[in-house]
Amino acid sequence: MKNNLVHEGERLDDLEYNDLKLIQNIKGYKFSTDSVILANFGHARPNDVYVDLCSGSGVVAILFSCKNNLNKAYALELQPALADMAKRSIEFNGLEEKIEVINDDLLNLDKVFGCEKVDVITVNPPYNEVGETSVTDEIAIATHELKTNLETIARVSSRALKFGGKLYMVHRADRLASIIYELKKNKLEPKVMRVVYPKVGKEPNLVLIEAKKGAKPGLKIMQPLILNNEDGTETEELKKIYSRK
Amino acid sequence: MKNNLVHEGERLDDLEYNDLKLIQNIKGYKFSTDSVILANFGHARPNDVYVDLCSGSGVVAILFSCKNNLNKAYALELQPALADMAKRSIEFNGLEEKIEVINDDLLNLDKVFGCEKVDVITVNPPYNEVGETSVTDEIAIATHELKTNLETIARVSSRALKFGGKLYMVHRADRLASIIYELKKNKLEPKVMRVVYPKVGKEPNLVLIEAKKGAKPGLKIMQPLILNNEDGTETEELKKIYSRK
Repeated sequence: MKNNLVHEGERLDDLEYNDLKLIQNIKGYKFSTDSVILANFGHARPNDVYVDLCSGSGVVAILFSCKNNLNKAYALELQPALADMAKRSIEFNGLEEKIEVINDDLLNLDKVFGCEKVDVITVNPPYNEVGETSVTDEIAIATHELKTNLETIARVSSRALKFGGKLYMVHRADRLASIIYELKKNKLEPKVMRVVYPKVGKEPNLVLIEAKKGAKPGLKIMQPLILNNEDGTETEELKKIYSRK
Repeated sequence: MKNNLVHEGERLDDLEYNDLKLIQNIKGYKFSTDSVILANFGHARPNDVYVDLCSGSGVVAILFSCKNNLNKAYALELQPALADMAKRSIEFNGLEEKIEVINDDLLNLDKVFGCEKVDVITVNPPYNEVGETSVTDEIAIATHELKTNLETIARVSSRALKFGGKLYMVHRADRLASIIYELKKNKLEPKVMRVVYPKVGKEPNLVLIEAKKGAKPGLKIMQPLILNNEDGTETEELKKIYSRK
């Protein structure tokens, strides 16, 4: 009974890729384009050990593992209610064999996997600094650095990744300098960067970063990713990312 | 006799701004668009203490100080022949009272100015790493990190700048991660960044960075600066920078 998996106060959203669905709390934090472009930005090989950090509803883990035909993926989420919802989404899509939800603090990443055991990490971290909120509910924890922060994510990821392993991150564009600093401090060398503009001519709001553990410096700056045309319609590239074309 | 200032093997180039000229060694390192866009990117107030590091022929110091109506500017250059040529360019333009050339190593910056005395620094550093050349002549020193490097420039600049003082840098786009890392390590917070594309649709080759000493994190990513149209003609913005419009 698939529909038993969707609880009261939740809804079932279409991920618009391979008929994948996602359970989301109607009053909770909803995934947005960020997760979709992150899942599309990164790459992995089928047998890679892959972990999605700050996994929330599991959207990145589900999309990334399916797009890359991964045999096994791990979605790590701190908040029990979100981890449970991610688990039910995975079951709804029949992916229980392929994606495992770990309800734990990312500080325990090396206890779960050991040091230098992970090939690929994706992370859509809480975007905002602690001072930017006064509440501590589920949404605040998902969107503010209340339980983790950039420095911790970089440190923990570096410890877990193999030499040459990759971290893919989406974050707020105005935090780019701190992102690069924390990654480099932790031997995660930024190798590819793409600045994301919500609309042509507008200020960028997001940045995509690929970092490689132990790599030599040398950053490829990709062409800007523009999500919407001036008239508000989606650009061809965004349509392609959403697999609507 | 102004023309006595131009020595054999040198030529007089037009800076295409306020009738300013620049003496350049025909066989030496010639300034390019980088210097012009750097001088145009930064800002200073008339009474600011302003220093241009790695000044070479003095092109950035001359353009920047004139564009900002500075009462006093300093151009610091290590190589005696370049420092001498910069001095003659300044004399040719009648700017002896306004721009002083200091022929010294930038390691001596705080001996010249004292700590925390400088308001604004511009720098167009050697772009390439040591391993990228096998010679050590004037051009190699101007273009490779043989006598200085990013780490030193950031450290020395931070020591010289007042709290809130600004550093403006142009550098190779692929070195962006190292630039940001070295600046932040030295309490120079990157506040504004602009990626420079030689041509629409091509890979970016340069990046402009404004860093502020002691500032809070928060980076404004400006719209890309595109220098040339698809047909090779200059974009309107480059024409404006060159004051041809």
